[in-house]
Amino acid sequence: MKKILIFFFVTLLVTCHGNILNHDDDHGSNNQIFPLRVKSGSGGHYIEEVSCASWRLGIEAHNIINWKTIPKECEKYIGNYMLGDQYRADSKAVNREGYFYAKTLNITTGKDIWVFDIDETSLSNLPYYAKHGFGVEPYNDTLFNQWVDLGTAPALPESKKLYNKLLSLGIKIAFLTGRPLKQKEITAKNLRRAGFKKWEKLILKNTTIYHGKTAVTYKSSERKKLEEGGYRIVGNIGDQWSDILGTNTGERTFKLPDPLYYIA
Amino acid sequence: MKKILIFFFVTLLVTCHGNILNHDDDHGSNNQIFPLRVKSGSGGHYIEEVSCASWRLGIEAHNIINWKTIPKECEKYIGNYMLGDQYRADSKAVNREGYFYAKTLNITTGKDIWVFDIDETSLSNLPYYAKHGFGVEPYNDTLFNQWVDLGTAPALPESKKLYNKLLSLGIKIAFLTGRPLKQKEITAKNLRRAGFKKWEKLILKNTTIYHGKTAVTYKSSERKKLEEGGYRIVGNIGDQWSDILGTNTGERTFKLPDPLYYIA
Repeated sequence: MKKILIFFFVTLLVTCHGNILNHDDDHGSNNQIFPLRVKSGSGGHYIEEVSCASWRLGIEAHNIINWKTIPKECEKYIGNYMLGDQYRADSKAVNREGYFYAKTLNITTGKDIWVFDIDETSLSNLPYYAKHGFGVEPYNDTLFNQWVDLGTAPALPESKKLYNKLLSLGIKIAFLTGRPLKQKEITAKNLRRAGFKKWEKLILKNTTIYHGKTAVTYKSSERKKLEEGGYRIVGNIGDQWSDILGTNTGERTFKLPDPLYYIA
Repeated sequence: MKKILIFFFVTLLVTCHGNILNHDDDHGSNNQIFPLRVKSGSGGHYIEEVSCASWRLGIEAHNIINWKTIPKECEKYIGNYMLGDQYRADSKAVNREGYFYAKTLNITTGKDIWVFDIDETSLSNLPYYAKHGFGVEPYNDTLFNQWVDLGTAPALPESKKLYNKLLSLGIKIAFLTGRPLKQKEITAKNLRRAGFKKWEKLILKNTTIYHGKTAVTYKSSERKKLEEGGYRIVGNIGDQWSDILGTNTGERTFKLPDPLYYIA
């Protein structure tokens, strides 16, 4: 009897959910970054926790793409996420999986390599973004590069744990970043200062060759060169889908959380 | 001065986060489904909301793969998620993106088709899973098929909205499911009863041909047949990564939330 009651209750709940919650049916808007509006009660008001959480899941699972800025209603939500426990815990979950996977590999050739993106993967630009609305402001090339040129970005601690564990397993590291070639020296300095002291390759973007190309094209092409150089890309980790899509993606890929910006 | 203070505060927070939160450093476990344990204070206790949220994000972004059951510590969390506002809102966000994208398409040939998975994409098995621990129990083929054979699974309301909007745009629908061919009649009946009254194709799994093959192989092969039949797969939506990975995936793919089970 209890089971039958549960069955009816759940069926009713699933079927009638829309009416109970009074979800907004605004399918007509073309604004992809406009957050989902969930209404509560007959008047309805915007529920930040629900709507912004759906937006964040949407970008992490690669359903919401090509966005320019975060929804302005989600600035506080994203700020709390980035500065609170959840971002760190989410990053840890991904890096743990990376390590669990790496431990199963047979590492013997000296040519096994793991590709790390840099920004929001190895180094954190959170000090910059915390001053610029956590992604609500449009990207400002000048200001962002001033920040990068300081060379003071802290390490992402969970990524650094993975980095150290991979090194101890005998896996080589290739940093592959969209930062331009002219930032190579400050990037190397920043990486060392943050505790990433060893790498096989540090690849920055030759903006002459890759002018106007997407990150997917640039990174695929550079990973192909790695493989042509005899390396086996056993893993590939980044905060952007463009780090892990395309060709020569590596034997397994890992997507770190990043609700601050989108790079195609 | 205020900016400098924010800068230092954030840098400190990012750098010292590990110490503040006292995260468990259990990188030694091989159990991929064991949830992330975040400890609070020096004694430390498991924080369901943080750890299970990280697990859920991990599976949705395809970082945690090949899991058999949900972490048992997350049964209550997943139950609340599935029965509460967030699952519905997350599903809505994905379906909205699908519609925003569909509206940009030029639909003229009569051969434009959108692939829908069935379970947890078109029809909900939540009444079943609510009685079976929300994925904490190992999959039981006999009991699950008894439920399917009732033909009473309710529609997922946000998916049904997308389905209706696609039809009104002139896009054809192909249902492509891992359900076996012998369930074709009851599946068709259930779809109609739930309000999915029209389709171009209803493809179930020929378990003789695809015996021992993964869902990725089966679904890729069936999508290839669709394309060979002259269809253009403009969209593809499913709750499993195996619905949208492989070949002939369609011009754009959409991943609906599903923290209940994993199909390779």
